[in-house]
Amino acid sequence: MARRGGYRYNTPMDLPEIPRRATRSVTVGGVIIGGGAPVSVQTMTNTPTAHAEATGAQIDRLARGGADLVRVAVPTRADTAALGRIVAEAPVPIIADVHFHVERALEAIAAGAAKIRLNPGNISDRDQVRRVIDAAAEAGTAIRVGVNEGSVVERTAGARRRSDLARPLADLMVDKLAEHVALFEAAGFENLVLAAKSHDAYTCVVAARLIAERWDYPLHLGVTHAGLPETAAIRSAAAVGALLCEGIGETIRLSYAGDPLAEVRAAVELLCSLRLRARRGVDLVACPTCGRLQMDLGPMVEKVRAELADIEAPLTVAMMGCVVNGPGEADNADVAICAGKGKAVLYRRGQRVRTVAADQIVSAVVSEARRLAGEQ
Amino acid sequence: MARRGGYRYNTPMDLPEIPRRATRSVTVGGVIIGGGAPVSVQTMTNTPTAHAEATGAQIDRLARGGADLVRVAVPTRADTAALGRIVAEAPVPIIADVHFHVERALEAIAAGAAKIRLNPGNISDRDQVRRVIDAAAEAGTAIRVGVNEGSVVERTAGARRRSDLARPLADLMVDKLAEHVALFEAAGFENLVLAAKSHDAYTCVVAARLIAERWDYPLHLGVTHAGLPETAAIRSAAAVGALLCEGIGETIRLSYAGDPLAEVRAAVELLCSLRLRARRGVDLVACPTCGRLQMDLGPMVEKVRAELADIEAPLTVAMMGCVVNGPGEADNADVAICAGKGKAVLYRRGQRVRTVAADQIVSAVVSEARRLAGEQ
Repeated sequence: MARRGGYRYNTPMDLPEIPRRATRSVTVGGVIIGGGAPVSVQTMTNTPTAHAEATGAQIDRLARGGADLVRVAVPTRADTAALGRIVAEAPVPIIADVHFHVERALEAIAAGAAKIRLNPGNISDRDQVRRVIDAAAEAGTAIRVGVNEGSVVERTAGARRRSDLARPLADLMVDKLAEHVALFEAAGFENLVLAAKSHDAYTCVVAARLIAERWDYPLHLGVTHAGLPETAAIRSAAAVGALLCEGIGETIRLSYAGDPLAEVRAAVELLCSLRLRARRGVDLVACPTCGRLQMDLGPMVEKVRAELADIEAPLTVAMMGCVVNGPGEADNADVAICAGKGKAVLYRRGQRVRTVAADQIVSAVVSEARRLAGEQ
Repeated sequence: MARRGGYRYNTPMDLPEIPRRATRSVTVGGVIIGGGAPVSVQTMTNTPTAHAEATGAQIDRLARGGADLVRVAVPTRADTAALGRIVAEAPVPIIADVHFHVERALEAIAAGAAKIRLNPGNISDRDQVRRVIDAAAEAGTAIRVGVNEGSVVERTAGARRRSDLARPLADLMVDKLAEHVALFEAAGFENLVLAAKSHDAYTCVVAARLIAERWDYPLHLGVTHAGLPETAAIRSAAAVGALLCEGIGETIRLSYAGDPLAEVRAAVELLCSLRLRARRGVDLVACPTCGRLQMDLGPMVEKVRAELADIEAPLTVAMMGCVVNGPGEADNADVAICAGKGKAVLYRRGQRVRTVAADQIVSAVVSEARRLAGEQ
């Protein structure tokens, strides 16, 4: 039986695959965005970019965690000065995040950034944008044109105002994006990735649907400023997950306040859970537990997770609290236990192996999983 | 300007609302599911139901956390015996989760459960199902017919086998559901909520889309056995969020291993983030921080969250690390700070209030938020 990602049922025959939108492909160093390439995960460092060593160490950590692309901010000349070393040492292509200062974009391109993120709304002079376009074209650097909710706010003397309060925010963002895309296309530059982000999840969905209808450039998805991990996970997975389920989105960035590794892990989990990326390591299926439960399963699940964290082979481990759903999940899993009163039944790939006492459950699951991981 | 949920822009004019599927409405105690009613949040207790006091205390806690409906398992006679007291004391309608034993369903209906969750695949005798239907019709009890991935597994002597390996899992689940629905409709019983769950997120999406096309009964959404909170949040929000963004889903249950309060909070966050529920309390917008950051904002965000956790008025508080997106978010927020080097600008409803030193940021945001909350 075909197996992938630890699911026995994960074959085209029975588990559906998401039909994906056709887009152009954009090459970002060794990573392709769009054109049928796997959806890539990006993140952004939060070290000062000018500290090349600290930034490089964080990039390594993020790449090991599953980031395909890492973006760095380059607000100052010292940041772009560090970029050459960062790019040279990084295990993944580096994207430079540029705002306001066209010189930073030119320096980043010269330093070998594989892609530039530009919000042209922050660079008011079209001739300056044109200089960036020409340099990027010359160097083969991709550009993401990323409009944010804030880009449709007009900066007037004493106040800020939406440019048009009578029109939906998503429409305004896409119109603003269209202005920028026209600028790039007029210059013959089509090595583009597009994005329009809001911190309102559904606005992100609507804006991305509009973009996907209008252009075939790859789309970068994310909910901006989604906050602390607990809420950011929900907001981001809802909007990005919704779009991915509609076949929209070629690269994603979840935006968590805090350690960027958390957002990388969550983005990887999102792609794996939609089977857009093959899972590495253990997929832990666990029931929420209910009044049918006859032992304290929660801490055991946590222990198994921790003990199997180093396994790289794709394995599904199910820890179920009762016979209602336990045997069904056991059938789908490489290793499963189905708990009863004071004991549990251990399953290997749907076959009942033996009964284990409650205090042996964790060790039995762990050793069975390690054995199967060794076979793969 | 119209305000709701703390967003200045949250008006029909500019932030889009999700167009929702039309469904029948099903009354579950004081809660309506479908028919245009707000999407409700459900969860399930994990105390032994027979312990009425512990179960009641957990139900109170879950209701305070935002659960509109709480389900309890009733595997034994002792559980249904406790149900009368639980139902009488609960601040929300109670749903009884029944498997295998038709007597438990009859007892739960007699005890006043507002809804029964039944997986008729677990009760093989159709006459027995008919007894439950008649009792529910007589008592006005709603029934959720919930098919799980496991329901399409055939139980044979020594092994378990999918009933049809050549057909997609979602189709098999929906066909199984159709058998059950036909049984209920033949008995003239239409007080139904439907569900088909898998632990595969995209299978849940596909199955729910099929159900929504085929029937106008309200749909209960959830990814089953989604595991520990960190991964369960992503899987559940992706699938449930995707469906909600398509206008599908009238009641939701996120399924986290562990304390059910965590899944309730996440489900509430999901509805709020899609503006399907008005937010109570503080919506904390926070930038992910990047190399542009010039102070350690993360711990400040966490402190503000903790200090404002008791506020019930809907308020948006934005904590932004630099001028790239700070002013734009400040414009959308009730209270905002935009950090710079050693200090930050404090905004109230888009208007710049004053500059505060780094060590005063938390107290300034907290006192400004409390002041505005007091005004509402």
